[in-house]
Amino acid sequence: MSENKSTQIQLVRRPAGMPVAEDFRTVTVELPDLGENQVRVRNEFISVDPYMRGRMNDSKSYIPPFELGETMQGSAVGRVIESTSPEFSEGDLVTHFLGWRDIAQADAQAFTQAQELGDVASSVYLGALGLTGMTAYMGLMKVAELKEGDNVFISGAAGAVGSMVGQIAKLKGAREIIGSAGGSEKTALLTQRFGFTQGIDYKAAPILTQLEEAAPNGIDVYFDNVGGDHLEAALNSFNRYGRAALCGAISVYNEKDPNSIPGPRFMTNIVTRSLSMKGFVLQDYLQFAQEFREEIAPHFISGEITYDETVVEGLHNALDAFFGLFSGKNTGKMVVEI
Amino acid sequence: MSENKSTQIQLVRRPAGMPVAEDFRTVTVELPDLGENQVRVRNEFISVDPYMRGRMNDSKSYIPPFELGETMQGSAVGRVIESTSPEFSEGDLVTHFLGWRDIAQADAQAFTQAQELGDVASSVYLGALGLTGMTAYMGLMKVAELKEGDNVFISGAAGAVGSMVGQIAKLKGAREIIGSAGGSEKTALLTQRFGFTQGIDYKAAPILTQLEEAAPNGIDVYFDNVGGDHLEAALNSFNRYGRAALCGAISVYNEKDPNSIPGPRFMTNIVTRSLSMKGFVLQDYLQFAQEFREEIAPHFISGEITYDETVVEGLHNALDAFFGLFSGKNTGKMVVEI
Repeated sequence: MSENKSTQIQLVRRPAGMPVAEDFRTVTVELPDLGENQVRVRNEFISVDPYMRGRMNDSKSYIPPFELGETMQGSAVGRVIESTSPEFSEGDLVTHFLGWRDIAQADAQAFTQAQELGDVASSVYLGALGLTGMTAYMGLMKVAELKEGDNVFISGAAGAVGSMVGQIAKLKGAREIIGSAGGSEKTALLTQRFGFTQGIDYKAAPILTQLEEAAPNGIDVYFDNVGGDHLEAALNSFNRYGRAALCGAISVYNEKDPNSIPGPRFMTNIVTRSLSMKGFVLQDYLQFAQEFREEIAPHFISGEITYDETVVEGLHNALDAFFGLFSGKNTGKMVVEI
Repeated sequence: MSENKSTQIQLVRRPAGMPVAEDFRTVTVELPDLGENQVRVRNEFISVDPYMRGRMNDSKSYIPPFELGETMQGSAVGRVIESTSPEFSEGDLVTHFLGWRDIAQADAQAFTQAQELGDVASSVYLGALGLTGMTAYMGLMKVAELKEGDNVFISGAAGAVGSMVGQIAKLKGAREIIGSAGGSEKTALLTQRFGFTQGIDYKAAPILTQLEEAAPNGIDVYFDNVGGDHLEAALNSFNRYGRAALCGAISVYNEKDPNSIPGPRFMTNIVTRSLSMKGFVLQDYLQFAQEFREEIAPHFISGEITYDETVVEGLHNALDAFFGLFSGKNTGKMVVEI
C-alpha cells in the first residue's frame, strides 16, 4: 500500500434494519503533506463493534450519528510512519479513533501513545486493554456495583465485553458467574476458558427457564449485552436489590423499528424486589480509566485474564467483519488486521 | 361501640384478580384485660392503600404476604383509652400498624406518640405527614435524586403520594411539574390545587403523545405510581440521564397474571440515553425520616402543602373504601373514619 494514499470506508446510506454493502462505499484519497504538529499512522488493526450500528441511525443517542459520506469512526491502533510532532516518532505504537482506513493522518492530539506489550498483538488495545475491557469494568464495578459473594449473570458472555465481565467478576470475588452464549461451542468456552461457573446455551432452550435452573438462589447482578428475552430472564431471577447494568441490546439493534417491540415481562419485580436498572456509556466513567488499567493490566500481562479475538484480514473485508457481528460470527473481540 | 370488644376485618381467601367481599370476613373478639406494659387504643382513622393488594398474594415481595385468617395490617391512628405503660396516658394520640379494627390492643412498643396538630384531623398521620408523604419524599429526593431545574413527570398525580411528590418537587425547585390523572376533575386539581405546571388527563388520549406534547424539552425525573403505558411514555420522553423512581404499578395489581404482561416499549432508550430505573420501598429509606419531617412539616403546618383526603365513614365500609382505590373513587389519601 502506498503511504501517501489512504483507503477508507464511508457510510453513504442509513441502513434499514440489517446493514448491507450498498450502505457503504470504499474511497482512496491522496494525503496532503503533513502540516505542523501532525502525525501519519499506518494502522495495524481497526475495530468493528456492535454499537456502530446504533450510530448509523439518525436518532437521539449518547453520541451523534455517523455523518453520511464520512469515513466510519472507531478505535484503531497503528504505528507512526511520519510525524511533525515532538510527541511522536516514527515507529511509535499509538491508538486513535479515526476508524476504518489503512493510513490515518491528523493533528497529534488525535493520537495516544500506547505501551509496547512484547509478544502480545497490538489489537489488545482495541479490546481487553481498551474500550472493551474498560466497558466491562465500569459496568460491573461502577454501575452494577458488584460486591463479593454476589451471583452474577452475563448475557453475550462469550463476546468481547462479556468474557471480560466474567473474568473481572471472578477476580472481584463473585460467587456464581453464569454466562449465556449462542451454541454449544461458545458456551463451552465460558467455563473452560473464561472461568465462569456455568454456561447457558440460549439456543438450546428458553433462557428464562435455563437461568431459573442455573441460579436456584437467584442473581444479584446482571450485565446485559443482549436485551429482550435475556433481560426478561434476569428480571425473573433477580434477588431483592438486584442491579442490572445495561450495556447493549444487540437483540434489537437491527430491528427496523426497535420502539415497536414490547419490553420484557416481570417489570413489576422492579418495584416488588427493589431492583435497579441502569443504562450506561463508557464515556461517563472515564474518570476510573486509570483505576481500571492499574487493577486489570497486571492480571492481563500475567495471563490470568485471557481473551479471544476474531481477526479478519484486510480492510476490504471490514464490512463482512462488521456484518458478522450480528450473526454471531465472532468469538471475542472482532478486529480487522490491515 | 364497646371498649372491651374489638371488631376486625380479616383476609380469608387470596383474591383472584380484583378483590371481592367474599375474600374477607368481619369478626368481633372479646379483649382480655391489659397485661403489663400494654395499651388499648380507640382508632380514629385506619388507612387503606393500594400496596395492600400486593400483600394479599402469596408471592415473593419486599414484605411478607398477609396471613389468611389474620386481621388486615396497616397504618392507623387513634387515642389511648387504657394503658398499663408508663409511656402512654389516656387521651394520648398514637399511630400504629395494627390495621383494620376499631379497638387496638397490644404491647406498648407497637404504638408511637404523635404530636397534636390543633385543627388538623389526625388522619394526616396516615398520609401527608405519614408513610404517604415519606414515600413521596424518599422516591423523589433519594431514589430519583431530583435536582433544581429538572422537569418532572408524575403518574397517579392526584393520588395521595403523587400530589405530595408534585408539591415537594415545587418546593425543591423543579421546573416543569407534569402530572397525569384520570378524568378532567382530578386533572384540574393538579394545577389548581397542587401547584403542578401541567396536568394530563390520561383518559382523554394516549398518555404517550400527551406527554410528548406537554414536555417538548423532555423529562428528567419520573415518579411512577402506575406502570404500563405511563412508564412507556416516560421512557419515550426521558432526556439523557433520566431517572425513574418506581413506587407502584397500580395498572397491573389486579391482573391475574401480571407476569404475562409485556413490558413497555422504548426499553432500548435505557441504554442509548443512560437512563436509570429503580424500584424502592420506604423501609429502605427510613434513615431519612427525621430529615423528611424537619423539611416538610413546616410547609404543611403553614398550609403551603395541601392534601386531599377521601374519608369513608365506618369500619363496615372499609372494604368498599379499599375496592374503591382500584376504580379511582378516591381523591388523595383514602382513609376510613372509625
